[in-house]
Amino acid sequence: MSNERLKSQLNFLLEADKMKSLYRQTYIIADESPAASRNDYSDNVPLKRRENDAEHSFHLALFAMILAEHSNERLDVLRVMKMVLIHDIVEIDAGDTYCYDEAGNSTKQEREEKAADRLFGLLPSDQQREYRGLWEEFERMDTPESKFAAALDRMQPMLLNYTKKGISWKEHRVKYEQVHERNSHIKNGSEKLWEYVEEMLKDAMGKGYFEE
Amino acid sequence: MSNERLKSQLNFLLEADKMKSLYRQTYIIADESPAASRNDYSDNVPLKRRENDAEHSFHLALFAMILAEHSNERLDVLRVMKMVLIHDIVEIDAGDTYCYDEAGNSTKQEREEKAADRLFGLLPSDQQREYRGLWEEFERMDTPESKFAAALDRMQPMLLNYTKKGISWKEHRVKYEQVHERNSHIKNGSEKLWEYVEEMLKDAMGKGYFEE
Repeated sequence: MSNERLKSQLNFLLEADKMKSLYRQTYIIADESPAASRNDYSDNVPLKRRENDAEHSFHLALFAMILAEHSNERLDVLRVMKMVLIHDIVEIDAGDTYCYDEAGNSTKQEREEKAADRLFGLLPSDQQREYRGLWEEFERMDTPESKFAAALDRMQPMLLNYTKKGISWKEHRVKYEQVHERNSHIKNGSEKLWEYVEEMLKDAMGKGYFEE
Repeated sequence: MSNERLKSQLNFLLEADKMKSLYRQTYIIADESPAASRNDYSDNVPLKRRENDAEHSFHLALFAMILAEHSNERLDVLRVMKMVLIHDIVEIDAGDTYCYDEAGNSTKQEREEKAADRLFGLLPSDQQREYRGLWEEFERMDTPESKFAAALDRMQPMLLNYTKKGISWKEHRVKYEQVHERNSHIKNGSEKLWEYVEEMLKDAMGKGYFEE
């Protein structure tokens, strides 16, 4: 095995470090918790802050491994985990597009295709095919793994947001109906999780977390 | 299936959010890269900052899936990925212990065992056994999966540190010999990766990244 192959792989892995600097709309929960005391190395990162793509992807991979049993269909859990770990990597070049931003979403596909060419292109050709393929499958949502991965990708920010009393929904004046509709495809991956989310959203509405 | 099971799982997953607020010694690379332009949601997180446990675990899971072929022994990649995703979760209660901190390392095991009882105890009992078992296996480093996971856990911060011109090594006045010895168990997981790391460390010494 040549060192060139390993070097390509490490280039890709070091490039992925940039996901730690790409921030999303969703806030982390931990700033409210007394248990998450901070050590000396936080470099003045604000306690109240949004989540970055690396943290989001980490969380989704944990969701995938813990919640896989709730999928509607039998799953290859390894494929789901790989998928959620790379599903946002294109944002290194293409940026984050907020799911309720209609203008941004109209150019999203073209920007992300170009990013996928460059980023997966860093890998050796067999792995380039594998991971580019997983990213495309995630986008299409037409297999058990991609339907479930997409369900988690929608459920995780909602759970954080609900735990934070609807902070991002309020900031963007999002209505209950928009959130309910935008996320209803969760049921294609998991009826069980969608049932839970629907109850949570009703509760959130009762608590005034949405724009009237 | 009862909702209690799902609620236990979600409690564990929301508790894991705290890993996003636990900072390590290692610095992220991305602050030096012009490509990692920041969007509007960064909430004044400093560009130069250390990595947190969620980001580290994310990165290790990517390392595991991309570099699995370099393991000395045949691997169950799914088990390696699960292992690296939960290997630092005990730090939510037990805190981070810098690998060259001898005093901290003497009490580490007791603190971490107690943390593992509480944190994995949030899960339904079958998953508690599975993930507690994976954490213990990781600590023992006595299976192909745990040897490889431990190798990645040592290699990833060294790669970041090398790319950042030895910043953490310099801060802690660490010597080449200490780093070389502390990390030589990488070869138990992967001769190939250790060979690469040894060359990198020699290069780092030549560049003055270590204490003389």
